Amino acid sequence: MANVAMLGTGLIGLFYTMSLHGKRSRDRVVVVQGRDAAKTKAFAEKWGIPRSTTSLEEAVSAKDVDLVVVGLPNHLHLDAVTAAVRAGKGVLCTKPLARTAGEAKEMLEAVEKAGVFHGYLEDLVYTPKVRKALESVRKGAIGRVLWTRSREAHPGPHSDWFWAREKSGGGALVDMGCHCIEIGRSFVGKEVRPVEAVCWAATQVHPIDAEDSTVGLVRYASGAVAQFEAAWTFRGGMDLRDEVSGTSGTIWINSWLRTGFEMFSAPGSGGYVAEKAETESGWLFPVGDETGALGYDGMFADMLDAWDRKATPVETFYDGYVVNAIMDACYRSVGSKRWEPVVIDDWRGATEADGAGSHTEYDAGHWLIKRERMPDGKSKLILKDKRTGEVMQKVE
Amino acid sequence: MANVAMLGTGLIGLFYTMSLHGKRSRDRVVVVQGRDAAKTKAFAEKWGIPRSTTSLEEAVSAKDVDLVVVGLPNHLHLDAVTAAVRAGKGVLCTKPLARTAGEAKEMLEAVEKAGVFHGYLEDLVYTPKVRKALESVRKGAIGRVLWTRSREAHPGPHSDWFWAREKSGGGALVDMGCHCIEIGRSFVGKEVRPVEAVCWAATQVHPIDAEDSTVGLVRYASGAVAQFEAAWTFRGGMDLRDEVSGTSGTIWINSWLRTGFEMFSAPGSGGYVAEKAETESGWLFPVGDETGALGYDGMFADMLDAWDRKATPVETFYDGYVVNAIMDACYRSVGSKRWEPVVIDDWRGATEADGAGSHTEYDAGHWLIKRERMPDGKSKLILKDKRTGEVMQKVE
Amino acid sequence: MANVAMLGTGLIGLFYTMSLHGKRSRDRVVVVQGRDAAKTKAFAEKWGIPRSTTSLEEAVSAKDVDLVVVGLPNHLHLDAVTAAVRAGKGVLCTKPLARTAGEAKEMLEAVEKAGVFHGYLEDLVYTPKVRKALESVRKGAIGRVLWTRSREAHPGPHSDWFWAREKSGGGALVDMGCHCIEIGRSFVGKEVRPVEAVCWAATQVHPIDAEDSTVGLVRYASGAVAQFEAAWTFRGGMDLRDEVSGTSGTIWINSWLRTGFEMFSAPGSGGYVAEKAETESGWLFPVGDETGALGYDGMFADMLDAWDRKATPVETFYDGYVVNAIMDACYRSVGSKRWEPVVIDDWRGATEADGAGSHTEYDAGHWLIKRERMPDGKSKLILKDKRTGEVMQKVE
Amino acid sequence: MANVAMLGTGLIGLFYTMSLHGKRSRDRVVVVQGRDAAKTKAFAEKWGIPRSTTSLEEAVSAKDVDLVVVGLPNHLHLDAVTAAVRAGKGVLCTKPLARTAGEAKEMLEAVEKAGVFHGYLEDLVYTPKVRKALESVRKGAIGRVLWTRSREAHPGPHSDWFWAREKSGGGALVDMGCHCIEIGRSFVGKEVRPVEAVCWAATQVHPIDAEDSTVGLVRYASGAVAQFEAAWTFRGGMDLRDEVSGTSGTIWINSWLRTGFEMFSAPGSGGYVAEKAETESGWLFPVGDETGALGYDGMFADMLDAWDRKATPVETFYDGYVVNAIMDACYRSVGSKRWEPVVIDDWRGATEADGAGSHTEYDAGHWLIKRERMPDGKSKLILKDKRTGEVMQKVE
Repeated sequence: MANVAMLGTGLIGLFYTMSLHGKRSRDRVVVVQGRDAAKTKAFAEKWGIPRSTTSLEEAVSAKDVDLVVVGLPNHLHLDAVTAAVRAGKGVLCTKPLARTAGEAKEMLEAVEKAGVFHGYLEDLVYTPKVRKALESVRKGAIGRVLWTRSREAHPGPHSDWFWAREKSGGGALVDMGCHCIEIGRSFVGKEVRPVEAVCWAATQVHPIDAEDSTVGLVRYASGAVAQFEAAWTFRGGMDLRDEVSGTSGTIWINSWLRTGFEMFSAPGSGGYVAEKAETESGWLFPVGDETGALGYDGMFADMLDAWDRKATPVETFYDGYVVNAIMDACYRSVGSKRWEPVVIDDWRGATEADGAGSHTEYDAGHWLIKRERMPDGKSKLILKDKRTGEVMQKVE
Repeated sequence: MANVAMLGTGLIGLFYTMSLHGKRSRDRVVVVQGRDAAKTKAFAEKWGIPRSTTSLEEAVSAKDVDLVVVGLPNHLHLDAVTAAVRAGKGVLCTKPLARTAGEAKEMLEAVEKAGVFHGYLEDLVYTPKVRKALESVRKGAIGRVLWTRSREAHPGPHSDWFWAREKSGGGALVDMGCHCIEIGRSFVGKEVRPVEAVCWAATQVHPIDAEDSTVGLVRYASGAVAQFEAAWTFRGGMDLRDEVSGTSGTIWINSWLRTGFEMFSAPGSGGYVAEKAETESGWLFPVGDETGALGYDGMFADMLDAWDRKATPVETFYDGYVVNAIMDACYRSVGSKRWEPVVIDDWRGATEADGAGSHTEYDAGHWLIKRERMPDGKSKLILKDKRTGEVMQKVE
Repeated sequence: MANVAMLGTGLIGLFYTMSLHGKRSRDRVVVVQGRDAAKTKAFAEKWGIPRSTTSLEEAVSAKDVDLVVVGLPNHLHLDAVTAAVRAGKGVLCTKPLARTAGEAKEMLEAVEKAGVFHGYLEDLVYTPKVRKALESVRKGAIGRVLWTRSREAHPGPHSDWFWAREKSGGGALVDMGCHCIEIGRSFVGKEVRPVEAVCWAATQVHPIDAEDSTVGLVRYASGAVAQFEAAWTFRGGMDLRDEVSGTSGTIWINSWLRTGFEMFSAPGSGGYVAEKAETESGWLFPVGDETGALGYDGMFADMLDAWDRKATPVETFYDGYVVNAIMDACYRSVGSKRWEPVVIDDWRGATEADGAGSHTEYDAGHWLIKRERMPDGKSKLILKDKRTGEVMQKVE
Repeated sequence: MANVAMLGTGLIGLFYTMSLHGKRSRDRVVVVQGRDAAKTKAFAEKWGIPRSTTSLEEAVSAKDVDLVVVGLPNHLHLDAVTAAVRAGKGVLCTKPLARTAGEAKEMLEAVEKAGVFHGYLEDLVYTPKVRKALESVRKGAIGRVLWTRSREAHPGPHSDWFWAREKSGGGALVDMGCHCIEIGRSFVGKEVRPVEAVCWAATQVHPIDAEDSTVGLVRYASGAVAQFEAAWTFRGGMDLRDEVSGTSGTIWINSWLRTGFEMFSAPGSGGYVAEKAETESGWLFPVGDETGALGYDGMFADMLDAWDRKATPVETFYDGYVVNAIMDACYRSVGSKRWEPVVIDDWRGATEADGAGSHTEYDAGHWLIKRERMPDGKSKLILKDKRTGEVMQKVE
């Protein structure tokens, strides 16, 4: 059980509070901090939070506070985390951890030096679907992971600071690519080193300085490639999908627009459909339980269970730092137009690649390239002569 | 916050306990009762329940127990509820409430006479999708409800007593039709009287006395028809779908086999896929959060919030009784091969139909039957002369 | 190769002509007949048809005509078929064959007595999906068929005569139920006798005399039940789905609204989306190849191949007659509120039911009711004592 | 109407012949050529082709042949085309046109110099879904195209020569990337110049020299980026999907594994499911009409209609050459690890980019960045000061 100080009253503070207070939870937000006194007070009243304040210092240092949740714009993360650490509180910080790996490293060092509990609030690796998929991958259900695709796209964020690069640290890559990168990394295996990245980013639609569209590839030491796609230019709602290809299987996850809930509404009086939905009439694709589907519930359960047990949650500031390091490489790649190494000063995972898989032998002299059932019911085998390298086929 | 006595350690007791203890819940099962002492003890240990017992009496009368949850086979509901009422405890009973309306009425009278808190554990009206859909319907998003279809089908239940009619009270209709009937009723509106039912039921596959397949129609006073389909003969997993047609919209819900999570696994080492999944390799459709998707979490949240607030939950024993009354009519219809009236001794809803919708006028002399956009971009109108009844068309 | 006289220039004549002339076809419509001379001439010009006429007699008796295609309103089928037979031409008639079984039988006797080639233009059993599914069923892919569901629903037809019962013979049941009934019958097996039917039908929305919504069940001699649902009240486009449950498998077909083609369009300038689409902006679900997806291409290929080979097509006037006989039973059931026998004077299929399946033995003393894998990895078996009938379970 | 000489009797020759002879077609293959006399003879007999031969020369120079269809392995395209041109016949060549842009250019020059009819058999831009989507894009349904994704992945090809780089010219990129590249190019607009490409390719699984997995980005002069993904390592069947993002809309196409046809088969006796399906039991996703869904029918209709009318088909050798030029840039990028220019000697499209879209003005002093409906029903606007560049928000 934990008492929480919530910093921030925007959409993320709202979702976090809904999740922390929802579903018979034993945890409570005891104080909320926001810039605007009236708005913060109203927020506290709406969500049954005993106290509100505009003072970050006051919020993080309150005696009854166990954990500080940082739900602030990106440029305020470092100061907020520093304040929480100074107050000796555990701290959970929203995504991205920082605007750059340098800033992230400062935060990581602060919490580790102080020895305080810390968690990186990367909710999307905690959705019920992603968690179950990760478990299946670990059990070998799809074999060795070869490629992942993680995509988040919508028509753009809801607050002004996202669109101002000096505050956000970047555009769609920083805002949503951070999710996709950590999802890909989780499927490949967090112990596997990200080696290099290539990235395209452009400002295709909006009158802003940062990119509103990006696609990148991160190559890992195992040979796996994790592809990410993030855009603030997508039309039709919020596109939140993941794909994983393994040597013996495939996973497809759709977390938002196609989840088995479809509604056609001519009058369109159904009210709010889902985050980022663009339409209220015609064919709609609502989401039943948004805080569940976005991973907030699973994320806080893991964080607070870890807090209760004095354990380490699945996502820590170190993970946030690695994600920032990958994003830094991506931005360098956008500039250099080539693959750029991922620079991690303090790599804590495996030092060796886990090696590519071995080949399948057909007989002493041949590798089996593949076997396929043909329309006529027979099987066709493609073989490779081990010595000469010649490729041949055989029907069985 | 509530202390719960859990009666039953089967699949339903398991799911209920998982839900009650899950997701940072503040509620706790303090005692579990089962027939088999060793199994019950193991259950208690696995789920961190302080005490286990084989004595129903001991479980329901324990001092620290607030609420009794009945997760027992159908033929044991009445006795368990009676025992809980005698002990002055609140009582939540699993579905179906009883084997017949007569039995259900006895239970309803017991709780109401004693004035104890009671809830009917009809989880499927509490899934996130169904709850959000119901809210949309209430807001008018699809207009007046005309027809609903609720379907639950799988290859058959997991415990022996389901298959023995004297214990279960029936086959697929009693086991799963009860869900479908209450879902349909919820969409039509629980204040609208169910008037009559027609039902087909047969034993198509299994060597049992009860029906393993059934389809029925329930006609409501508003003119709406709620169709249900339940089968223990379905192959491919668990089919859990709902459809609602309204005068101005449509809702399609798929709660299980197609929810945006798809996996192809050649080795199939991913372990347990989902309740009633029949395969472990090839294309699989896992469910991320089963207790959430099946409505258990939403159901217990409503029940326990109501308990905390001394309020009435969405589903009470009265609802369970109405469902049994509809099922009784269905069984009569199977025998008589005709529509049978739904007999409810104690109707508490609206006494009048809410009337069919009025027609749309085209002009003073004509009703508008419909308007459709044609391939050539024009609109075709179908009109009816109010006086002569003649139907004609017009292109605009 | 065939020369065709097309009777009718409405939507059905349009689709038929598109299909007959499409995709490098060797067949040709050589004359088209319609009530309105100007419209018919324009139709002929648009589709490259050499001649147009308002005279049915002239069209059917033209020397170069091999086959007459009847694409007229229901009340004109009998006269058109009679005229074609008189002219000694082969005749293909659109669905439903007639308004009643009596009328259908007259048509059947006319073609059979004259010995002319005849086909029943039930396109939806000819869609690529349905044809392939039927082939799979025949090969045993899903075992013995137990239950089918065929649904066609949209916001109502495009021409006035559909809405006038004296011309159409009925509402949604006659218009679209005829498709669903023949699809269900095809899956159950056309040699299996339809025994009885129960049907609900109501006028829920439109100011018309006939039903705009109907649901029915047809029970076959094999014990299989074929369910149909037809409505002119559906909102959201055209809902065209089929489901088949067998003892060892399941088939789900979605022919229209969810076929792997999805478009979100804010401006909505994409033009005509698909037949019966209600919206042009927001999320749209277009159909790539309408004449293919609706079965017209497969249907005419079968009909004209049969014509070339002097063989019998898959769908003949006899099939149309059986469908009318089932619909007659349905209408009687709507009135009597009970199951009604299907009266077929001239049953040409199997006289005996093909019998229910036999049960699976577990050991000499027990039937196996079912086997299910549990979350803990074990298998639970439900057994029935052959002698006592007792049901028990066993974990392996 | 055309008489065709079919070169090749492999899977592609089979599909081409099925399509050319299917659905009441007026066209005919009059001679088929293959390396193996017996197999070729059997092929001819099966498909009703009058003559078979092992001599390419004989096949292409036959008097009754109008068009030569080249369905041979990649390394034989140039010789076959040259032979057809020498014989003065029209020539249709399968994909990829050649192994390199150099080879493709030779073929292009041959046909253009001789003035013979030529078509590039890129079937996947001709599927009913892609054709209709392209039409919608052209009509403005999704605004300006920003990004496309085209993906083709399966467990690897069925014939030995694909796996031998000297014959095929490459791996998954040449085999399937060629499809994806032309699909992306078609959505962006074939008049828009492809400027540069970046590509990752690796041999992740199979014991071969060429890549079995690749992802690439092609940047066009309009600013649009067309992403392709091709793999011979995919498990679960054939993954054939396209996505298009525009400034005002989105298109999602799934051409194979999820098209509204789903079957669960326990016995799995349904026979051949679809090209590249890996399983025959469990959940299967058959395709009803393979030659239609893969675009063969639409492709030959366009080609042969163009032939009849002496017109130019949608896909010519020039298109094949451009695709090869893009693939050449991709292979260079794999080696250089950077973006590489697309070198087209003979660019025939627009010389200027069509320019990015203009921004939306909110008022004289501000650009509108975006507008979003919030959960509380209000609209939030994000604005940018035209002069200072400051970003701010406003609630309406």
